[in-house]
Amino acid sequence: MDPASILITNDDGFGAEGLRVLEESLASLGSVWVVAPDREQSGQGHALTLNQPLRLKRVAERHYVVQGTPTDCIYLAVNTILSKRPDLVASGINRGYNLGDDITYSGTVSAAFEATLMAIPAFAISQEIGEGPISYEAAGRWSASLAQQILKRGMPPDTLLNVNVPRLAPKGVRITHQGRRIYPGGVVERRDPKGRPYYWIGGQSADWEADPATDFAALAEGLISVTPLHLDLTNYKVVDEVRRWNLEL
Amino acid sequence: MDPASILITNDDGFGAEGLRVLEESLASLGSVWVVAPDREQSGQGHALTLNQPLRLKRVAERHYVVQGTPTDCIYLAVNTILSKRPDLVASGINRGYNLGDDITYSGTVSAAFEATLMAIPAFAISQEIGEGPISYEAAGRWSASLAQQILKRGMPPDTLLNVNVPRLAPKGVRITHQGRRIYPGGVVERRDPKGRPYYWIGGQSADWEADPATDFAALAEGLISVTPLHLDLTNYKVVDEVRRWNLEL
Repeated sequence: MDPASILITNDDGFGAEGLRVLEESLASLGSVWVVAPDREQSGQGHALTLNQPLRLKRVAERHYVVQGTPTDCIYLAVNTILSKRPDLVASGINRGYNLGDDITYSGTVSAAFEATLMAIPAFAISQEIGEGPISYEAAGRWSASLAQQILKRGMPPDTLLNVNVPRLAPKGVRITHQGRRIYPGGVVERRDPKGRPYYWIGGQSADWEADPATDFAALAEGLISVTPLHLDLTNYKVVDEVRRWNLEL
Repeated sequence: MDPASILITNDDGFGAEGLRVLEESLASLGSVWVVAPDREQSGQGHALTLNQPLRLKRVAERHYVVQGTPTDCIYLAVNTILSKRPDLVASGINRGYNLGDDITYSGTVSAAFEATLMAIPAFAISQEIGEGPISYEAAGRWSASLAQQILKRGMPPDTLLNVNVPRLAPKGVRITHQGRRIYPGGVVERRDPKGRPYYWIGGQSADWEADPATDFAALAEGLISVTPLHLDLTNYKVVDEVRRWNLEL
């Protein structure tokens, strides 16, 4: 059997330490291809870049830099760079967690979604940060063990795994569901030197629903959180109810 | 009973025609507050803006412009502008549809999600466009009739409605689920004048799964599509399966 082909990308850019740790961690499992954005993409749009051309630069064997989003990286890698479809896509290790409702905006998770759309098994992995130095060691080690499982078992259809690693040495692993932000409702009003107001969102720190099955709770208990996600936001539970509204023209 | 208070925003910016049509369409149902981004936000991040201050400008009675995302607009409106919580949030009318997997990246839908997080009933409404002039008339009319229903019935918990209106006169209404893109896989390689390659994503046009229950199919048949969405991407169907993997440290 051919050695596994593993494609990795991230949201923090090609030079990020988390990407390097991910590459090293997966190296023993197959040939790792690194195709990553040239710079940090946080806060950028995470969809495919359709309205402008993308530059792609080979910087070393199996190492490419893309002037685009993490999603672009996966798309270009599979469609033009790799000669065959990868067996696994891993995205990360992101500097900072991707939990709860905020994963909708996460480039790290979006890249894994793009792979899932192409029916390629994928996971996203993010490292909680706090004060003091960041260690990606536990996340790297656990990436390898998860990758091994996925290469062996495959992935349920239409599913990706969103992994978050706690800041301190993990005490275990929990399969979770996506948690919900509890609305802080804070806005801080300030005045500029000319007396004009401006506003900061998030005066209070965000809180989260108290449910031990959530990704947040797992992390707070020092566990690695693994959430199986899919791409479908439809609330099937209420479809029939809305049908009974008999909406008409 | 007080007249209903309705908050509207959009992704195309304060000056967009779709926003004006939405405002006029809902005017007979209550007092409409318009809080919208100062410029088009498409392709911007759609999360809350946490790392920079936001400017807010009152331009007329109940009309405000925010230097921020549609999500910021909803947040600021509810937390600082309106004296009481609105009874309904409507986002749109977006210039161009918001269907299938792409709604993850939609500012129009994100604004409605933000309202849903605050337990305020909300819908997003988008107008399919094609060649020739755009008419928001049908979408405007239907916004009013939907808003009336929601004000009367309320909304199922944790749910928003994602509405798309076909380009030609709608023939009816269908409650749908979120469709899936079928992967086109196209990349077009070009050379710049210096002979260096660059890439366009999406050589072929995207196709969609052939399922009449999807938002895509409804629009293709000339129907208004109404998809109930929630905020949870967890794939609950596979949670137990992944638990049986017995992932450990």
